[in-house]
Amino acid sequence: MLAHKEVDIITEKANTLIEAMPYIRRFNGKTIIVKYGGSAMVDETLKANVIRDVALLKLVGLKPIIVHGGGKEISKWVKLSGKEPEFYNGLRVTDKDTMNIAEMVLNKVNKELVGLMQKMGVNAVGLCGKDGNMIRCTKKKPDGKDIGFVGEVEKVNVELLETLMERDFIPVIAPIGLSRKYEPYNINADDAACAVAKAMNAEKLVFLTDIEGILMDPDNKKTLISEMDVNTAKEFIADGIVGGGMMPKLQNCIDAIEEGVSRVHILDGRMAHCLLLEFFTEKGIGTAILKEPLF
Amino acid sequence: MLAHKEVDIITEKANTLIEAMPYIRRFNGKTIIVKYGGSAMVDETLKANVIRDVALLKLVGLKPIIVHGGGKEISKWVKLSGKEPEFYNGLRVTDKDTMNIAEMVLNKVNKELVGLMQKMGVNAVGLCGKDGNMIRCTKKKPDGKDIGFVGEVEKVNVELLETLMERDFIPVIAPIGLSRKYEPYNINADDAACAVAKAMNAEKLVFLTDIEGILMDPDNKKTLISEMDVNTAKEFIADGIVGGGMMPKLQNCIDAIEEGVSRVHILDGRMAHCLLLEFFTEKGIGTAILKEPLF
Amino acid sequence: MLAHKEVDIITEKANTLIEAMPYIRRFNGKTIIVKYGGSAMVDETLKANVIRDVALLKLVGLKPIIVHGGGKEISKWVKLSGKEPEFYNGLRVTDKDTMNIAEMVLNKVNKELVGLMQKMGVNAVGLCGKDGNMIRCTKKKPDGKDIGFVGEVEKVNVELLETLMERDFIPVIAPIGLSRKYEPYNINADDAACAVAKAMNAEKLVFLTDIEGILMDPDNKKTLISEMDVNTAKEFIADGIVGGGMMPKLQNCIDAIEEGVSRVHILDGRMAHCLLLEFFTEKGIGTAILKEPLF
Amino acid sequence: MLAHKEVDIITEKANTLIEAMPYIRRFNGKTIIVKYGGSAMVDETLKANVIRDVALLKLVGLKPIIVHGGGKEISKWVKLSGKEPEFYNGLRVTDKDTMNIAEMVLNKVNKELVGLMQKMGVNAVGLCGKDGNMIRCTKKKPDGKDIGFVGEVEKVNVELLETLMERDFIPVIAPIGLSRKYEPYNINADDAACAVAKAMNAEKLVFLTDIEGILMDPDNKKTLISEMDVNTAKEFIADGIVGGGMMPKLQNCIDAIEEGVSRVHILDGRMAHCLLLEFFTEKGIGTAILKEPLF
Amino acid sequence: MLAHKEVDIITEKANTLIEAMPYIRRFNGKTIIVKYGGSAMVDETLKANVIRDVALLKLVGLKPIIVHGGGKEISKWVKLSGKEPEFYNGLRVTDKDTMNIAEMVLNKVNKELVGLMQKMGVNAVGLCGKDGNMIRCTKKKPDGKDIGFVGEVEKVNVELLETLMERDFIPVIAPIGLSRKYEPYNINADDAACAVAKAMNAEKLVFLTDIEGILMDPDNKKTLISEMDVNTAKEFIADGIVGGGMMPKLQNCIDAIEEGVSRVHILDGRMAHCLLLEFFTEKGIGTAILKEPLF
Amino acid sequence: MLAHKEVDIITEKANTLIEAMPYIRRFNGKTIIVKYGGSAMVDETLKANVIRDVALLKLVGLKPIIVHGGGKEISKWVKLSGKEPEFYNGLRVTDKDTMNIAEMVLNKVNKELVGLMQKMGVNAVGLCGKDGNMIRCTKKKPDGKDIGFVGEVEKVNVELLETLMERDFIPVIAPIGLSRKYEPYNINADDAACAVAKAMNAEKLVFLTDIEGILMDPDNKKTLISEMDVNTAKEFIADGIVGGGMMPKLQNCIDAIEEGVSRVHILDGRMAHCLLLEFFTEKGIGTAILKEPLF
Repeated sequence: MLAHKEVDIITEKANTLIEAMPYIRRFNGKTIIVKYGGSAMVDETLKANVIRDVALLKLVGLKPIIVHGGGKEISKWVKLSGKEPEFYNGLRVTDKDTMNIAEMVLNKVNKELVGLMQKMGVNAVGLCGKDGNMIRCTKKKPDGKDIGFVGEVEKVNVELLETLMERDFIPVIAPIGLSRKYEPYNINADDAACAVAKAMNAEKLVFLTDIEGILMDPDNKKTLISEMDVNTAKEFIADGIVGGGMMPKLQNCIDAIEEGVSRVHILDGRMAHCLLLEFFTEKGIGTAILKEPLF
Repeated sequence: MLAHKEVDIITEKANTLIEAMPYIRRFNGKTIIVKYGGSAMVDETLKANVIRDVALLKLVGLKPIIVHGGGKEISKWVKLSGKEPEFYNGLRVTDKDTMNIAEMVLNKVNKELVGLMQKMGVNAVGLCGKDGNMIRCTKKKPDGKDIGFVGEVEKVNVELLETLMERDFIPVIAPIGLSRKYEPYNINADDAACAVAKAMNAEKLVFLTDIEGILMDPDNKKTLISEMDVNTAKEFIADGIVGGGMMPKLQNCIDAIEEGVSRVHILDGRMAHCLLLEFFTEKGIGTAILKEPLF
Repeated sequence: MLAHKEVDIITEKANTLIEAMPYIRRFNGKTIIVKYGGSAMVDETLKANVIRDVALLKLVGLKPIIVHGGGKEISKWVKLSGKEPEFYNGLRVTDKDTMNIAEMVLNKVNKELVGLMQKMGVNAVGLCGKDGNMIRCTKKKPDGKDIGFVGEVEKVNVELLETLMERDFIPVIAPIGLSRKYEPYNINADDAACAVAKAMNAEKLVFLTDIEGILMDPDNKKTLISEMDVNTAKEFIADGIVGGGMMPKLQNCIDAIEEGVSRVHILDGRMAHCLLLEFFTEKGIGTAILKEPLF
Repeated sequence: MLAHKEVDIITEKANTLIEAMPYIRRFNGKTIIVKYGGSAMVDETLKANVIRDVALLKLVGLKPIIVHGGGKEISKWVKLSGKEPEFYNGLRVTDKDTMNIAEMVLNKVNKELVGLMQKMGVNAVGLCGKDGNMIRCTKKKPDGKDIGFVGEVEKVNVELLETLMERDFIPVIAPIGLSRKYEPYNINADDAACAVAKAMNAEKLVFLTDIEGILMDPDNKKTLISEMDVNTAKEFIADGIVGGGMMPKLQNCIDAIEEGVSRVHILDGRMAHCLLLEFFTEKGIGTAILKEPLF
Repeated sequence: MLAHKEVDIITEKANTLIEAMPYIRRFNGKTIIVKYGGSAMVDETLKANVIRDVALLKLVGLKPIIVHGGGKEISKWVKLSGKEPEFYNGLRVTDKDTMNIAEMVLNKVNKELVGLMQKMGVNAVGLCGKDGNMIRCTKKKPDGKDIGFVGEVEKVNVELLETLMERDFIPVIAPIGLSRKYEPYNINADDAACAVAKAMNAEKLVFLTDIEGILMDPDNKKTLISEMDVNTAKEFIADGIVGGGMMPKLQNCIDAIEEGVSRVHILDGRMAHCLLLEFFTEKGIGTAILKEPLF
Repeated sequence: MLAHKEVDIITEKANTLIEAMPYIRRFNGKTIIVKYGGSAMVDETLKANVIRDVALLKLVGLKPIIVHGGGKEISKWVKLSGKEPEFYNGLRVTDKDTMNIAEMVLNKVNKELVGLMQKMGVNAVGLCGKDGNMIRCTKKKPDGKDIGFVGEVEKVNVELLETLMERDFIPVIAPIGLSRKYEPYNINADDAACAVAKAMNAEKLVFLTDIEGILMDPDNKKTLISEMDVNTAKEFIADGIVGGGMMPKLQNCIDAIEEGVSRVHILDGRMAHCLLLEFFTEKGIGTAILKEPLF
């Protein structure tokens, strides 16, 4: 016979599974884009957690696609090659040498991730924007300035992604695009994730970040905003309510919504299993930006 | 920011979901037969729990079929009609009038269950063995004795079940068979569940019962046997270790194994969400009878 | 060598088969709803005839669905339970107890019919409106009066029917609907047949009745009207030409036409093989109500 | 109201349709080869009857293939060209000129038949053994004698036939084969029909002939044999019971059975609708040769 | 080691294959109609070349259909039958006897071509407009004059062509149509090719002729026009620039363009492998008539 | 009118295309593995030629897979990192650092190739053995010696390759395997090509090398052996006829044949369009090793 304590634990477990049910039903067969970056890409435990979470999303019927960056490691290798990493408005100034390094590092990160996913029983395929002619781009010129091989996504050809997903492979995408002249270009990973989400008519785009979400007062974590519609988000930026490091993240979300994704999430990738908790429990975490006003 | 307590709860939830992962993977696409009976069919809360559990099994990729009985209610209606229910070796002696009542009651129970499942968002279809020429039987003659319209399953035609399951309907089966002369026969629900499990090459057959499982000492619930192979089960019966009300249940399990099902479970249907806990947590509950010896 | 007489018989047979050819061609692959009721449901010989006819319709490529009532038998059981059956405008006043009886009787009739069809080699599946969430309804309030669990069809979900028919099962439907609160409701069988015909884009809806068809003079069977368009039908009712027991039948036909069925037939179910004769011979029988005027 | 007489006729019609039912069921989806020849190819009324019958076979689910000859007309054209038709053991001695004439005549007959079938609403496609590389042959040398371009079927490639039949076209085949050197060869129409029947695993092969069937006494039509097994057929030939013009016909049937067709029929093509009567009525006509002994 | 000379030849070969690449890509999966006539149908070497070319078109992914005439041979046989061939405005005056001869000759030519194609490994199927109810026509009355069984295409039913081409058979079509009364009619082969091209949404229609193409000066082969748009073509005819035997050919091309074919070619069938050269090399040959103006 | 010279050229072109026909037919739908290495990977013109050739193979219906190495570039980067490349029996001694470099370089080469292929209109997808769990390996221990992360292919999972090829993507594979512990291992590119060829039941495996083929006398290019069977190849090695740099290449071919590939080719990748010439012209080039003896 089970002890009282055991009965409590068992009941709790059953409740958690039951609590997940409506969410599993709602997301069944839906495409979900996970922008994977920040600490969750560095810390080995967090990394394993993210992969386990993605595996569970897949298992219960969601269709995840991972888009990752490689930020810190690119800078490390640029330095090793004797150059100083240079940025303009948060975008990496990318000459030919830097682009070569970026491509090598991004593909390295990409295949490492695939190897780790295979180890954990997740059938991943590592791709960049060249594969299947997937990500086509033009040169991005912030304020009209030429900062080198930095691309703006022009078109995402989804045939390769659809082919793989139909057969239950999970695509893992490094943000490299092909220009009209078929040169490789560096694409901002957030931008790439937005573009893929839009092209795939994704149900949800999730940014794994190193912040709790959007805070009214950046110094007070109790001021976390759980949900906001896109117009409110714009006002926050216009009114300077959200500023500093949070501003570009929020702008990313707004862009994604405006590119047709109906729901964008900023999750704290430092929190174990944040993906599961966001997808399968009543108490969502982080900040959700929605297309429609809430009331 | 989340309080410590909240973090603990969240971690617990995430762990429960992660714990379920290997089981979801293992049972993905597998057919599972649930013999539904006992208290779980009477108590409204338990009933709702069972349906929710079945819904979750379906959602995460299993293919459940429900086979139910109607025992107590048949006896009630037989009495109302002025007769005294009669049994021989645990089988209902079934004359023509009793058969009419049995059929009416079983179909009533069947459609009530379907209505309840629809209410809870589970797309069920209520069937008896006549539908799709599904359950064909011969007369069962225990010890050579004719006890009327009591059938022994001869053949289960699976085409209707497969047709429905391919399109994600959940079959709910009342244990009525068609004799060679196409007369309706009363089939013991446990027998029907075994026969369906065998014909569908089910991965697992689960009996929802009113006992904790097989106990070494029927008066001591601490003597619950978690797993046993089929030969041990036979020895237990031969040696009289298991007796009384438990014996026929155990015999059912042995029969199922011998008819080709690789794993049979006796669960305590009085325990909330026993199906979920059995399928998705490490600590299985009740007693499992396995084809192969354990070591 | 064949005798003269034999040659005549053989020629007659060949002609009958050849006569059927254009009709078989015309109805090939078309969905046909048969509202099954009246004497044809009581008399054993007529019953066997109807099933044989339905089997032949199926064999030569039509797609029949049967919707049946259970009228007289429900009243019989209501009386047995000690109540007096009560009607309002031809609709059964249905309290909770009466609904329970209606459901039991309808499912009993349903499965009896399925058993008989199986016996005659017709692969039927017995359903009610709960199965596959098929018939959803609201409360019907004639003249604003609440007469209990009597439903008005709101929606017919055809997925289950289509699933079964694709695999050559013949659906047999008992007219029970699910209310928005998922309670079972009694639906008039003619209404249910109309709603199913409309939802399935049926080619034809046939009512098996106990009348020859619509008569100009109800006392003179020579005044049978073979075909009429829906507007004429309405005028007949408005002008009181058709009245008495025939009026509601004709109104049913008008409703069916207005719900989108292009051809509705009133057949005399007391005539052997009336279905075959209507479908496959030049001389149609009974009364046909057509969408379009005849000239 | 229907007069008594009318009721009788109607009942008769219904009975004929019902009588056809088990045969329709039995032959559903089965491939049937009709060797079309004799009077039924000359008389315009009989021709129209045969086509109507084939149309009905198709409509109710059989899959007919027609193989025709062109015997008399070939001889007529050979004579017109100034030659005397020559035969050896019933096979046409076929020099190059005769082969040219035979091919032209057979294709003419073929396309005339197709035109007539189209006129009667039957979607036929006219083929010879060259089309789709269908009939490959070697030279036939009766008693080792070279009689020119007369072929013995070596292989029937069924892909073209299957392609057409899947889409409900009815193949009409002129018996011309391609030799290993890809020259056209004249094939005996009965032989071609046998070979096609075998290659298509036909359920039945029917010879439309100008005889009633096999008679014990060729001068007494009352001695018609309705059914015989293949061994009896061989004995009849061996014992000289069947002789004269009937012998080669019977030998054809024996060959067909031995090439794997399970049932071969000799029908009297001079009898109107003989195909329908054979396929769809209890009283089969003509003589059936069966693989298995009758008892 | 290869000699210099050999290296040159090999390089040339490689270049030819590489040169073909963009054309193969462009025409991949496209339907191409080849109107086959003139010398290429008479000369055995040219005939073999055309078939080889068609085989190669098929092999590398194009979908060819051949429409052939039988002109000279029909006249030969009409004369043999004792009549003088008669024409009106280039159309054969066709009484019943002439029609019979035309049909026989066209089918003879058709099946001869199929036999030759089979010999060269090309899986052809010979059809006329009767097969599959393919070519339906009305009587053509040039200047209101009745010239007998000469048809104007009314409708091309493409189902048979599509069925065959899906399974990689190459249709070879004799230009015989069925009138509304289902009588065979003689169709001008150029007209038939146009009609088939239009109905099949062909990418290209190619006329194999006995001229080099359209010449500005019919006596000077250096004045060959390589490409012209349809309006220019009309002007040429209106202005009398192109006249004599070339005029009707050009009018055919204009008609084809106006019936929806985007590109029509006049090729010189007397030139070996003209099809290959037109399809797969940069230097097209003959004259192309295009829908759109060239600049 | 065409000049004589032009006619000659045109005839030559047509002949080349016709010459290719039987080869296109023979290889249609067949899987071809191209081991891509040597000069053809370094020289930009040769590289473009190889890609164009592969594109043409694909266009005309073959199914190519490219497996490439990265040999010289790995050594270059190892040196840059301050180490001296070390080999044992031709295999790279691969410590952890070297493996990291090898993986980075191979993926860089892989994606560069994919980018170039996309630029030339070839829809490639760059993969390594981690993707889709494709190449699983164990540690290779030549003479029992541990030389680090050097793998021996244990299993090739073909699902990913088949998925991509069904949708007309061309897989480009970098020879990295996953060990049982899911660590990346360096696989010899020739070995990887053999293993993929075997797993995919490839029709042909082609090694693009920097030698003309197998020479009887390595100093005399006129002694090139065009074809040899596998047993002769073994004898050549045993007898020391073939030695030096040619020996390992020949051994590779023998291994491939023994692993089930029926035809292996050694081509001189320095020769322009060697793939086309080998596949589509009568005069094959290089040396073919065949399973079966030649006579």
